[in-house]
Amino acid sequence: MLSESKKKINVGIIGGAGYGGTELIKLLLFHPRVNLCFVTSRKYAGMKISSINRFLSGITELIFTEPDIDRLPSDPDLIFLATPHGTSMSIVPEIVKAIPRVNIIDLSGDFRLNDPCIYSQYYGKEHSSPDLMGSFVYGLTELNRGAISKARYVANPGCFATGIIFALYPLFSVNAIKREVSVVSVTGSSGSGELPKEVTHHPVRAKNFKSYKILDHQHLPEVEKFFKEKFSGRDTKIGFVPQSGPFVRGIFTTATVYNEDINDKVLQDAFSDVYQKEKFVRIVGSSPEITMVYGSNYVEVSVVYKKNFIVSMSAIDNLVRGASGQAVQNMNIMFGFEEDEGIQFPGMRP
Amino acid sequence: MLSESKKKINVGIIGGAGYGGTELIKLLLFHPRVNLCFVTSRKYAGMKISSINRFLSGITELIFTEPDIDRLPSDPDLIFLATPHGTSMSIVPEIVKAIPRVNIIDLSGDFRLNDPCIYSQYYGKEHSSPDLMGSFVYGLTELNRGAISKARYVANPGCFATGIIFALYPLFSVNAIKREVSVVSVTGSSGSGELPKEVTHHPVRAKNFKSYKILDHQHLPEVEKFFKEKFSGRDTKIGFVPQSGPFVRGIFTTATVYNEDINDKVLQDAFSDVYQKEKFVRIVGSSPEITMVYGSNYVEVSVVYKKNFIVSMSAIDNLVRGASGQAVQNMNIMFGFEEDEGIQFPGMRP
Amino acid sequence: MLSESKKKINVGIIGGAGYGGTELIKLLLFHPRVNLCFVTSRKYAGMKISSINRFLSGITELIFTEPDIDRLPSDPDLIFLATPHGTSMSIVPEIVKAIPRVNIIDLSGDFRLNDPCIYSQYYGKEHSSPDLMGSFVYGLTELNRGAISKARYVANPGCFATGIIFALYPLFSVNAIKREVSVVSVTGSSGSGELPKEVTHHPVRAKNFKSYKILDHQHLPEVEKFFKEKFSGRDTKIGFVPQSGPFVRGIFTTATVYNEDINDKVLQDAFSDVYQKEKFVRIVGSSPEITMVYGSNYVEVSVVYKKNFIVSMSAIDNLVRGASGQAVQNMNIMFGFEEDEGIQFPGMRP
Amino acid sequence: MLSESKKKINVGIIGGAGYGGTELIKLLLFHPRVNLCFVTSRKYAGMKISSINRFLSGITELIFTEPDIDRLPSDPDLIFLATPHGTSMSIVPEIVKAIPRVNIIDLSGDFRLNDPCIYSQYYGKEHSSPDLMGSFVYGLTELNRGAISKARYVANPGCFATGIIFALYPLFSVNAIKREVSVVSVTGSSGSGELPKEVTHHPVRAKNFKSYKILDHQHLPEVEKFFKEKFSGRDTKIGFVPQSGPFVRGIFTTATVYNEDINDKVLQDAFSDVYQKEKFVRIVGSSPEITMVYGSNYVEVSVVYKKNFIVSMSAIDNLVRGASGQAVQNMNIMFGFEEDEGIQFPGMRP
Repeated sequence: MLSESKKKINVGIIGGAGYGGTELIKLLLFHPRVNLCFVTSRKYAGMKISSINRFLSGITELIFTEPDIDRLPSDPDLIFLATPHGTSMSIVPEIVKAIPRVNIIDLSGDFRLNDPCIYSQYYGKEHSSPDLMGSFVYGLTELNRGAISKARYVANPGCFATGIIFALYPLFSVNAIKREVSVVSVTGSSGSGELPKEVTHHPVRAKNFKSYKILDHQHLPEVEKFFKEKFSGRDTKIGFVPQSGPFVRGIFTTATVYNEDINDKVLQDAFSDVYQKEKFVRIVGSSPEITMVYGSNYVEVSVVYKKNFIVSMSAIDNLVRGASGQAVQNMNIMFGFEEDEGIQFPGMRP
Repeated sequence: MLSESKKKINVGIIGGAGYGGTELIKLLLFHPRVNLCFVTSRKYAGMKISSINRFLSGITELIFTEPDIDRLPSDPDLIFLATPHGTSMSIVPEIVKAIPRVNIIDLSGDFRLNDPCIYSQYYGKEHSSPDLMGSFVYGLTELNRGAISKARYVANPGCFATGIIFALYPLFSVNAIKREVSVVSVTGSSGSGELPKEVTHHPVRAKNFKSYKILDHQHLPEVEKFFKEKFSGRDTKIGFVPQSGPFVRGIFTTATVYNEDINDKVLQDAFSDVYQKEKFVRIVGSSPEITMVYGSNYVEVSVVYKKNFIVSMSAIDNLVRGASGQAVQNMNIMFGFEEDEGIQFPGMRP
Repeated sequence: MLSESKKKINVGIIGGAGYGGTELIKLLLFHPRVNLCFVTSRKYAGMKISSINRFLSGITELIFTEPDIDRLPSDPDLIFLATPHGTSMSIVPEIVKAIPRVNIIDLSGDFRLNDPCIYSQYYGKEHSSPDLMGSFVYGLTELNRGAISKARYVANPGCFATGIIFALYPLFSVNAIKREVSVVSVTGSSGSGELPKEVTHHPVRAKNFKSYKILDHQHLPEVEKFFKEKFSGRDTKIGFVPQSGPFVRGIFTTATVYNEDINDKVLQDAFSDVYQKEKFVRIVGSSPEITMVYGSNYVEVSVVYKKNFIVSMSAIDNLVRGASGQAVQNMNIMFGFEEDEGIQFPGMRP
Repeated sequence: MLSESKKKINVGIIGGAGYGGTELIKLLLFHPRVNLCFVTSRKYAGMKISSINRFLSGITELIFTEPDIDRLPSDPDLIFLATPHGTSMSIVPEIVKAIPRVNIIDLSGDFRLNDPCIYSQYYGKEHSSPDLMGSFVYGLTELNRGAISKARYVANPGCFATGIIFALYPLFSVNAIKREVSVVSVTGSSGSGELPKEVTHHPVRAKNFKSYKILDHQHLPEVEKFFKEKFSGRDTKIGFVPQSGPFVRGIFTTATVYNEDINDKVLQDAFSDVYQKEKFVRIVGSSPEITMVYGSNYVEVSVVYKKNFIVSMSAIDNLVRGASGQAVQNMNIMFGFEEDEGIQFPGMRP
């Protein structure tokens, strides 16, 4: 329960005009421990946030400002970067230099990896700040909480990566994957961002289902790195097929493993051990459902074992748990707030 | 800002298993001035709310109870009825007798009218408590606030009625409708409730658009009654065509009036006069949009005048503003809370 | 039943890369009386149609050509223009000069009006061939069949105009509209064309409903002109509100008229008289439904009279009856084919 | 091209009121070699088909009859069974006895297997005609054409089975699956049939994605049986996860195999060898798309090999290729018609 005397932190957002940024603005405006001081947008600088996002009018009078690090309007405790991949890596060094004591949570993919070669292979450009890559802690909250609580800089996970890691972690924890695992994840159209494009053209998307970046998506290496660090020595092959489905929000992940030497109890126990105490993770009996996490920071997971196949699944909202909600959860941990403050909304159903 | 010392009221819900009830449970669980004491459901009595509505697990441990008025588990300050039409009218007398001092907000259509003949004509059954019909105040919050603040019993408006009244009120206020107005309102599928039926069968509904209960919907008489009382002496004809569209949440209302003797400024001023100061009502420049009120208690309205036609429009979320959100707003007014407490959520976009 | 000896006509399409053009290609490829000789596309010239529209691979080997009138690959009997508004008016004079005996069916709005002032008012540009405006017959097939059968040039109606005229014609025929009629039409996203844009961005469109070009849509003047010519002397005011809904195909039109001096029988008879014998028009008991005409050239209409309001409705598929299907139907009439040849497909359900 | 002198066959449908039956009626009504003589429906016996399926009015005057085998209205050459699982097995013996020379195509699952034990395990009931199980040829057209051409009785494949077999066959043909393969298939809501139920309730389905019958779907054993017979001696493990997505038509199948000892060329060649000459199968470069096969009998397939993973995919329309279209294709082969007669429709896009 909130006490009015609790101190607030000053927070800014750089790159707040996209879907991730908008969701973040919304969460922070209602967060009891946050003063949202500034939101930058090169495109909309000088315009009211509420003129671009009409649903926030009456709720905030903030005006988008230029992303000029030297003239940021306050002395922030924390800066969120909701900039596109490739932009964060040039802004972060400026911030670090200009405001050395500030905390940073980067929602882009720029600081999730620590190997500039792998970065350039998957993101198609050279990393301009390779020396800073190792300074960021990976923000998969429940599964990296200790490191996050001590971190100054957090790299918020990719939306697919979040779904995949939640599905696979318990399998790794009991060594259930002997060699390889097949992962298929389907995402809603909001994952493609706020700019109209071919793949989000309604007449097509509304009835379509397809794969893309097959075995080649940029969220795969952060998953591989995460598991390599957590379960050292393991060389697990992950085949990852991203897909796009005809819905707006949500990612559903299905991981399949063939294993003759395990049983259902071991698997159910693994999921219990990892997630039972986690407020935001629901272990469900049959299948997770996107409709059950829609709009919320919650995660649903389940595991089924039959005919020597393990099927492990997760469902998240890509914009909340897959981006801004998890970012706020990480903030809460970094600043010692209650972990669920500002992100308790249970979602919308139907 | 919430003070912890503020007293809470004890609230119960009768008939809490439907979509309206579920939304209400969700709002009340997070309302800072409410103890949600009981929720009844004949169908699910004895089961945990969270076992039926999985997205509430971890958030409430409440168990659905039998709707047995004599054995309600506490001494409530307020009871919401989220029962179907025809059920409220038999429960209300029991409640009034058993708990004379309790406040009631009825979300059904049973107490929105005061003429039992019109009731039976539109609802297809005799009203069993005609003597109580006059005891309820109509809960169209912004436009009946004074009466609601003093009411013991409130009849929460129908979802279509809410959309229509928000679109028409300013027109009435400047006498812009000489004789008749055409109203077309399209609703999402959640308005048909939680039970699968033909009209909500996904293979059909997902691509369909049609009208139903043409010129004959049961929400029309409560609109007529409301305007007759507010603007006495007027005999305006309202032609109302409800339609069902292929989306889940929202009602979009379009009202058209032919009037050669008015001008745009008068109309814009009328909307300003009525809504400018209302937190939950947004006057927009061109057209309201469902996506801008999706999941929230907000209302968007606009008016256009060209070629002697007035087009007045509104958009609401049918489950929030069209039902549970407005019910909570009415509760806030009845109990002297801040009007927006517990219903500040600005909705989801996208 | 088709006789193999029946002669085919040579047909070309100018501007065949959009949704209207694609639908037209599909219909003509399977039409028993048509040789599809060429399809032009400035954007895709030199590419196979099936490489742009994968679903036609194996069905046609045609290659998009440049829209160079002087080098059209054959001596066509008929040219369809599926070019955007503003393009047809500059191409038609070239065609008329280069191939004087050819028939033309223009799917754009350029030749539906005969008043260049009204054209420029609604289409935002000067008409470059005002002298040719009067040479086109309006192709609302069932309601202008005689003129179409003798026409060399046909202006195919707009999608909204088609829906509106089908709903209103019987009302005009019995003089049921004393002075004004309110028309609301909602269209699917395919009406916005094949290029991604804000209004067809899936994350928004999938959940949205809104009005646009309120009382100001460019399809209105062709409706007014049509009725003025058919029912001379009448000065009916039509208030038209176009809306966009979250579905892909279809237009649903609702027209409302207040009239105390008519009765249901007169109206039902009017619909029977006009449509009873029409193969492609279904008079339905309650409401037309988009799902019933989805993918087909059929039209559903109905009329309801209650409480002195007339509600007249229609449902069409915007790309078939609202564009290419009606264009083929007009071709059939112009060339003396069976009216339903090549467009008998009853649609898809579900 | 059709010659009018070509003889037609007499065809009947038993159980024609569901989605599969409706699609079949539509295809057969327009098939140049078919007289559709009768369609039975216990539920709608005595009613016009077009009164239940309004979109067929004006196209057929047929009346649903009782499924009374002894009183079938004609001497049919072929009977389609579009009855539910469990019904066909009791009707087939009656038909065989009453009309010994008739051909049968059963769209249910009753005669796809030949082991009554496996049948009862997956379908939850005893098979009542185990002796007839071996009499049916499996109707996966392109991959079992020879047997189908000589068959009297054909068991039409399940919708999921069709998608899976198209994706896996080339992999089997080059022995690319060493031991196990993971298969995930997502289906649209029309696969659940025409009766409203929880899983097709629009407010939920429109935003949901989930798995069901995980590793336990009844279409798996027919896939296993098919491959065991085609590629004898192989003991491949297939882990199959069916999923339901928020769209109406289509099944998208993703199969993943780990294999270090193969290369891309072998796989692409395998797909070419199997499908290159097939009119209805399109090998695509990247991913199949449901929107490209929507409403048609076409199949899209593709295969990708990277990082030692094989990803093989297919997309079909579940009601056409996954049921009625393939049934008509089988009929064409059984009766020596052109294989594509009556099913050439390329689908709808968008």
